[in-house]
Amino acid sequence: MIQRKISRYKNDQRIQVAVDCVIFGFDGSRLNVLLIKRSFEPEKGKWSLVGGFVGNEENADEAAIRILHDLTGMDHIYMELFYTFSDVDRDTSGRVISIAYFALINVSNFSEQLLRDHEAKWFPLDKIPTLIFDHRRIVLKGKESLRRKFEHYPIGFNLLPKKFTLPQLQNLYEAIYEAPLDRRNLRKKMGSLGILTKLNEKEKKSSRKGAFYYVFDTVKYRKLQSSRVKFI
Amino acid sequence: MIQRKISRYKNDQRIQVAVDCVIFGFDGSRLNVLLIKRSFEPEKGKWSLVGGFVGNEENADEAAIRILHDLTGMDHIYMELFYTFSDVDRDTSGRVISIAYFALINVSNFSEQLLRDHEAKWFPLDKIPTLIFDHRRIVLKGKESLRRKFEHYPIGFNLLPKKFTLPQLQNLYEAIYEAPLDRRNLRKKMGSLGILTKLNEKEKKSSRKGAFYYVFDTVKYRKLQSSRVKFI
Repeated sequence: MIQRKISRYKNDQRIQVAVDCVIFGFDGSRLNVLLIKRSFEPEKGKWSLVGGFVGNEENADEAAIRILHDLTGMDHIYMELFYTFSDVDRDTSGRVISIAYFALINVSNFSEQLLRDHEAKWFPLDKIPTLIFDHRRIVLKGKESLRRKFEHYPIGFNLLPKKFTLPQLQNLYEAIYEAPLDRRNLRKKMGSLGILTKLNEKEKKSSRKGAFYYVFDTVKYRKLQSSRVKFI
Repeated sequence: MIQRKISRYKNDQRIQVAVDCVIFGFDGSRLNVLLIKRSFEPEKGKWSLVGGFVGNEENADEAAIRILHDLTGMDHIYMELFYTFSDVDRDTSGRVISIAYFALINVSNFSEQLLRDHEAKWFPLDKIPTLIFDHRRIVLKGKESLRRKFEHYPIGFNLLPKKFTLPQLQNLYEAIYEAPLDRRNLRKKMGSLGILTKLNEKEKKSSRKGAFYYVFDTVKYRKLQSSRVKFI
C-alpha cells in the first residue's frame, strides 16, 4: 500500500496532477505530433496526448521520463516542461492540473509495431484531429515554445536522424517556422557555428546529384548548449 | 463548506498545489525582488516568496491574481507563469507542487505602509537572503525567464514609472542583463521601434544638464506585444 505523506498544512485542497507530453517528430519534410487513442473513460477511444498522473514518489520530470519510456522504450529523450494548464473544468472527470512537456523524437526510431501496440499515430501539425479536453491548446502552446527554444538552442538535432542532409535540416527549420528559409543563410549560419561535420557519403534518393550527409559535432554541440547563441 | 468535485478517475493521488510569485521591482538603478516574512509554520519568520494555495474554484492564473491583489491592492499586474516546481521533498510539510509566476511592479507604486503591513521587503537580486525551501531556485529560474522574455517583448515598461528618462531605461536593461549596454545602440533601437514619446520636461535631480522624460506610446506598444520583435 502506498503511504501518503501527511501534510501539516491546514489547507486541505488537493488536486490530481498529471503530466501530458507533446511528442514532436520530424519525418524529413513535416513536423508531426504523436497522438494516442485514449484507453480509458472518459473520452475513451478519442485522440489524446500521451500522459499520466504524477505519482507520490516522483517529480514531474520523473513522471514524464517514465511515461515516455513506457511508450517508446527509450531513455534520454529530449524533453522540456513548457507550461502548466489548470483551468477548473479542463478535465471533465475531476480537477486535474496538467504539467505539459514537449519531447523531441526522431520518427525513424519509432517502429510501426510500437505505434500499433499503443494505438498511436503521427499527425502532421496542420492535420491534428479533434482532441480531448484542452489538448489542442496544449499542442499549440507546445509548438510556440518549441519555436522559441529553436531560436537559441540547437535542439533540432534531436529530431533528425544521425546522418542528415542540409536539405533535410532546411526542411526541419521551415517546418518549425512555417516559413521558407534562405538556403544560403542557413548554410552560412551552420558553418559559422561549426557544429556540423561533413561525411564523405551522399544521400541519393532525393535528387540525382545527391546531397552530402552530415553528422553533428557533439563536443561543440554541448558547448553551444550551455551558452546561448542566436541560432537562426 | 466547500464541496469537493468528485473525481471519476481511479487514481487517488492528490497533491496540494500552490502558486509562488517572484515579484520584480526596479528602483531606478537595481532590479529587486519582493520577499515576505512567512507568517505560519513551518519556517515561520523566514524569508519567502509571496504565495498561496490554488483554490478549488480557480485556475493558477486566478490564484496568482488573487494573491498579488491581496498583497498590493493592485489589479492588472503584469505576470507570467514561467515554470512548475514539483520535487517530492521541496516543501518540508507535505507534498506541494508550486506553479511559479514572475510579476513586474513599479517600485514607486509600493508604499512603505504596504511593506510594513505584510512584513515585506525589496531585496536587490544580488543580495537575496536565505530563503525557505527551493525558493532561491525559483527566483533564479524566474530571473532567467524574465531575461528571455525581455529580448523580444517590451515588458520592461511595467517596471518603469509612467515618465522615465533614457538613463533609467538603460539602467533597467543593464540590471536585467547584468552587463553594460551601449547607450547609442539602445537609443537607436528604441527610436526605430517608435514606441517612445519625448516629453517637453526634464528630470534634473540626477544630472546638472537634466534628462528628458519619455512616456511610451501605448497604441504602438500593444501592436508590438502581439507581434514578436527582436527587442535588444
